[in-house]
Amino acid sequence: MEETFVPFRGIKNDLKGRLLCYKQDWSDGLRPGIRILAPTTYIFFASAIPVLSFGEQLDRNTDGTITAVQTLASTALCGVIHSVVGGQPLLILGVAEPTILMYTFMFDFVKDQKDLGPTLFLAWTGWVCVWTALLLFLLAVFGACSIINRFTRVAGELLGLLIAMLSMQQAIRGVVGEFGIPKRKNTKDTAFLPSWRFGNGMFALVLSFGLLLTALRSRKARSWRYGTGWLRGFVADYGVPLMVVVWTAVSYIPFTDVPRGIPRRLFSPNPWSPADAYSNWTVIEDMLNVPLLYIIGAFIPATMIAVLYYFDHSVASQLAQQKEFNLKKPSSYHYDVLLLGFLVILCGLIGIPPSSGVIPQSPMHTKSLVTLKHQLLRNKLVSTARNSMPKDANLSQLNQDMKDDYNEMTPLVHQNPPALGLKDSTVQRASSSSYMNAPVDEVDKDHIDDDLLHLEVKEERLSNLLQSLMVGSCVAAMPLLKKIPTSVLWGYFAFIAIESLPGNQFWERILLLFTAPSRRYKVLEEYHATFVETVPFKTITFFTLFQTFYLLLCFGITWIPIAGLLFPLLIMLLVPVRQYLLPKFFKAVHLQDLDAAEYEEAPAITYNLSFEDQEGRVSNIDSGEVLDEIVTRSRGEIIKHVSSPKVTSSTQSPREQMKSVYSPRFSEMAKSPRLSEIITEISPRSPRPSKLGRGSSST
Amino acid sequence: MEETFVPFRGIKNDLKGRLLCYKQDWSDGLRPGIRILAPTTYIFFASAIPVLSFGEQLDRNTDGTITAVQTLASTALCGVIHSVVGGQPLLILGVAEPTILMYTFMFDFVKDQKDLGPTLFLAWTGWVCVWTALLLFLLAVFGACSIINRFTRVAGELLGLLIAMLSMQQAIRGVVGEFGIPKRKNTKDTAFLPSWRFGNGMFALVLSFGLLLTALRSRKARSWRYGTGWLRGFVADYGVPLMVVVWTAVSYIPFTDVPRGIPRRLFSPNPWSPADAYSNWTVIEDMLNVPLLYIIGAFIPATMIAVLYYFDHSVASQLAQQKEFNLKKPSSYHYDVLLLGFLVILCGLIGIPPSSGVIPQSPMHTKSLVTLKHQLLRNKLVSTARNSMPKDANLSQLNQDMKDDYNEMTPLVHQNPPALGLKDSTVQRASSSSYMNAPVDEVDKDHIDDDLLHLEVKEERLSNLLQSLMVGSCVAAMPLLKKIPTSVLWGYFAFIAIESLPGNQFWERILLLFTAPSRRYKVLEEYHATFVETVPFKTITFFTLFQTFYLLLCFGITWIPIAGLLFPLLIMLLVPVRQYLLPKFFKAVHLQDLDAAEYEEAPAITYNLSFEDQEGRVSNIDSGEVLDEIVTRSRGEIIKHVSSPKVTSSTQSPREQMKSVYSPRFSEMAKSPRLSEIITEISPRSPRPSKLGRGSSST
Repeated sequence: MEETFVPFRGIKNDLKGRLLCYKQDWSDGLRPGIRILAPTTYIFFASAIPVLSFGEQLDRNTDGTITAVQTLASTALCGVIHSVVGGQPLLILGVAEPTILMYTFMFDFVKDQKDLGPTLFLAWTGWVCVWTALLLFLLAVFGACSIINRFTRVAGELLGLLIAMLSMQQAIRGVVGEFGIPKRKNTKDTAFLPSWRFGNGMFALVLSFGLLLTALRSRKARSWRYGTGWLRGFVADYGVPLMVVVWTAVSYIPFTDVPRGIPRRLFSPNPWSPADAYSNWTVIEDMLNVPLLYIIGAFIPATMIAVLYYFDHSVASQLAQQKEFNLKKPSSYHYDVLLLGFLVILCGLIGIPPSSGVIPQSPMHTKSLVTLKHQLLRNKLVSTARNSMPKDANLSQLNQDMKDDYNEMTPLVHQNPPALGLKDSTVQRASSSSYMNAPVDEVDKDHIDDDLLHLEVKEERLSNLLQSLMVGSCVAAMPLLKKIPTSVLWGYFAFIAIESLPGNQFWERILLLFTAPSRRYKVLEEYHATFVETVPFKTITFFTLFQTFYLLLCFGITWIPIAGLLFPLLIMLLVPVRQYLLPKFFKAVHLQDLDAAEYEEAPAITYNLSFEDQEGRVSNIDSGEVLDEIVTRSRGEIIKHVSSPKVTSSTQSPREQMKSVYSPRFSEMAKSPRLSEIITEISPRSPRPSKLGRGSSST
Repeated sequence: MEETFVPFRGIKNDLKGRLLCYKQDWSDGLRPGIRILAPTTYIFFASAIPVLSFGEQLDRNTDGTITAVQTLASTALCGVIHSVVGGQPLLILGVAEPTILMYTFMFDFVKDQKDLGPTLFLAWTGWVCVWTALLLFLLAVFGACSIINRFTRVAGELLGLLIAMLSMQQAIRGVVGEFGIPKRKNTKDTAFLPSWRFGNGMFALVLSFGLLLTALRSRKARSWRYGTGWLRGFVADYGVPLMVVVWTAVSYIPFTDVPRGIPRRLFSPNPWSPADAYSNWTVIEDMLNVPLLYIIGAFIPATMIAVLYYFDHSVASQLAQQKEFNLKKPSSYHYDVLLLGFLVILCGLIGIPPSSGVIPQSPMHTKSLVTLKHQLLRNKLVSTARNSMPKDANLSQLNQDMKDDYNEMTPLVHQNPPALGLKDSTVQRASSSSYMNAPVDEVDKDHIDDDLLHLEVKEERLSNLLQSLMVGSCVAAMPLLKKIPTSVLWGYFAFIAIESLPGNQFWERILLLFTAPSRRYKVLEEYHATFVETVPFKTITFFTLFQTFYLLLCFGITWIPIAGLLFPLLIMLLVPVRQYLLPKFFKAVHLQDLDAAEYEEAPAITYNLSFEDQEGRVSNIDSGEVLDEIVTRSRGEIIKHVSSPKVTSSTQSPREQMKSVYSPRFSEMAKSPRLSEIITEISPRSPRPSKLGRGSSST
């Protein structure tokens, strides 16, 4: 995107581009029919649970002025409007943690002001929203979004880690609070006797840790070994909402005489009661009662919120449209910020916190709409093979058919010369063995892999509209949602904090600093960010220490009652700091690697060489570790390693069954003893045949 | 060991062999000086905590007739005697789970007998011990231990899994019991009001799961990345006792007004109070009050216990003396069973449950006394290198020195021709590159690895004696041990159950049956037991189903009030079943692999070929899994893989620093681009440079 600041030019371009494909946005959404519900429900759950949790947090922080009902309503309302008249329909809107923080700071400020007080809080935030919207209009009109590429990793990841810290803080505060007496409750209630509170607190620990641990596990379900592929996929996609349901159900297990009122559950007004629902419509009236000085003062938080929203909205949109997704339709940064302005005013006037683009839901949305071209290809290959079977075609005929199909679908593959090096000779040796069928070999995975990342995204508006409507229906389902124990939500806060860490390079660098020097080679043995190899360790250390200091500064400022309001300023300040200050201390090439726009990983390095650590001791061979690895845990038996197990039966072993049934090539290869040896040799973990290993089993 | 049944021959041989090295057993123990305390404390903790837990279990099951004081006393007493006059000093004695089970069955039987009742329980078990000892004498005299090689994996692992199930059952019962009112307590106590019991139960859940999860983690500490090597080793060795201390400390945290009596703690008599201590000395007197019929009837449980002890004691001894430990001193199976007979009588007469050889403590003891010869070698190499440095020797001189050292210490290594296959060509290419220094190459890890398992064990009696004395001192420390919450012990029961599973091939086969067909190849991709490759899957299935059925039979029988006593019979019945019945249903070669005496593992197989699962769907490429792997969790960024990161600085990157400082060979290799390419190719995880990967980072 070119950096241009001509008024309205960006908005005009965006509108022009998106209008051209507007009709197609809907027709593409209708084409998959009922299958559109899969990405819809996936994003709905990914979006609804945090909004509900943030609502509960805001409920505590604003003494019930804003509750989960309002956060859900805002997410639904803004989502529906954005999905219909918004620019980029892949962008998901929601009430996010920074909004909660700003509203908390504003409430803390307002409640102590004699002229405002809690009753005029919503009215004052209405004014804040008006100012915010005006600033957003200005940003949109003057094309501020064209500089979003300057928002590098350093600012985004710092904000990410700050939010993780704040979420974890909320989780801890929440659980600790379960041991105490909540505000706004009758302290003489039996449920608040010491022994009852102790029981409640302990139950809260069980529920929140239960949710945290099971939710973290469920995210890895796709690589589980057990269960069908469908089940694994379901648990991986819907594990978190599933666990919320499971642990809510656990909280209803009739333990021996559970005291009434344990555990505490969500506290939200009933949206069906007229008294509660009406209060929001009086905000516009109240706005006129706000003293002029405070109306002007509202400009200060408005600048902060505008900066935050401009940043979050643009970055979320950018992540939903990464180059690798191969999107075909144009972007719409400027117009979307303009629309966001209108949404902020709307929310402000009816007294609900505004929504903005959310991470990671937005890229998750795009991901859920991806189809792998490669899979289509593979399915075609299989069906060809299947069709050939009954025709009693011989193997070479079948291979020819498959090859034709393959060539037809991937015209480019065979233009790539095979990679040079060892693998080459493997293939040559394989081919020279008389058992090999060359055509099958050419359709091998090495080549197909090249295609694996050819993604295709259905870009449409329907899934976003439907998920927003589903979030809206949660407001109606509030009486049901109130059955969720608050402790489950505290566990969820801990979950989002921990879940956001992997993939954050700032966090990974912090871990690297804590890694024992003798163990640093382990980082290289796995997939790792490229900077580990290209930037000197000392530079990594200084850069990370600087960032950590900055992070603690941001975290510290959120603890200061009113100054906390200014934390977005600190985040935005990182952009000029990165551009003008850091290059004075770090080499440009290093900065570029440490603060790369894209997430680059280098493959694992395998080398089994020893080295001493900094103290000069020989330490990468830890005798305890070696012994632990060679002795079984259950009975203390020493494990023998045999490099090629003796085949004791004429019938096929499962290894061979698998190979022969599923891949003619491999079973042929296995028959050539030379080659199977080679394959064993390639494996980096394959041990050299030791003297022990050579002894065959004796009885 | 030859199978000979000439009376007394085995005992005589054992005594002759052990007497020859008896003096050395002590002098070898004294030589390491203070360092002997490391294996001593390691085994002490590994031995004391289960004995304490079993004591608490027995306390519940026998209404307090036998407590942790008695189990600790028995372990200490038998341990001291065995370490001084026993045959194999590596064997560790202790009160084990099967003993607890048998005593529970016996108590359940006795308490309902009008002529005995709980008061004559210890007297009756005295008679049981007398009969047991007689049977053990007969077994020892007639050389029954010479057939221990017939106790194959099938019986040992089934017993292991049965004990795991029973431990888990105890853990669950214990935690559930924390929600109820304990027996033998005043039910009108305030601590047993419903809300208090609820709080106690929830706290118990927190403490037991806390112990379980942290103890499981601590066992893997050695491979952690963080912390110094010393700390990692300490946590791995002493993590479990450490966690017992930590969670006991947690139970003392002053939560808001913890009700008194929460959590419940160990209930054991004070061994210092005369009333409690005296009762055991009256057992011999009481034995004369047992009616004759019951004295004869005591023979039935005695046969069961004798069989169990003969089996456990011999197998524990066998595992402590595995061939791979390279023990130099002779075994002593027959004499040790004879001595066990005397110990059983002694324990029976003073009313404490007898001890027998324990798994996995016995092999752990041997392991703790191991030194790796290889490590000595490596240290020598390093010091040579260090000494050459100041002399300003050139590199080839240094290499020559190291080579000389190496040859001197491992005369056999160079007789092994290097393995054939691909690696060979790697080495050739490496050598042909002008940078390579051949001598260093020869001292490479591939060859050294062969030596890695050359273990040397200090065979001595001192560590066993000292650890037994330390267990004895626990009796004196009972007032301190009573501070441990019972729920921590329930967590410990769950820990030993789970900890005993990995390495149990029966369990691993059960998991294999539950593995989704499309995921079975993952078993081959890791280190795996050899039978996976050599035995057809169908055979594995039938064999495992048979074993599972047998296991459930054994587990079921423990639930039948008096018949439960017979469970050791079922276990022993497996020996003839294995020898005479199973060969009729399974091929001998398959049986040999499934029921191998030694634990054999085959290295990982790496092949990236695709195959369909049984439903014929293409399923090993799960698009969700692929997408999960290419997208970061924190921000949803797509990860790019670059196969060789651009080096952006003239200064050394950490990768190069490590290589050049720690291994001259690797840094030379890295300079040859061809070779580093090869290394990348060898890695099975290294992706082919995809079209995406090729795009360099753009900003």
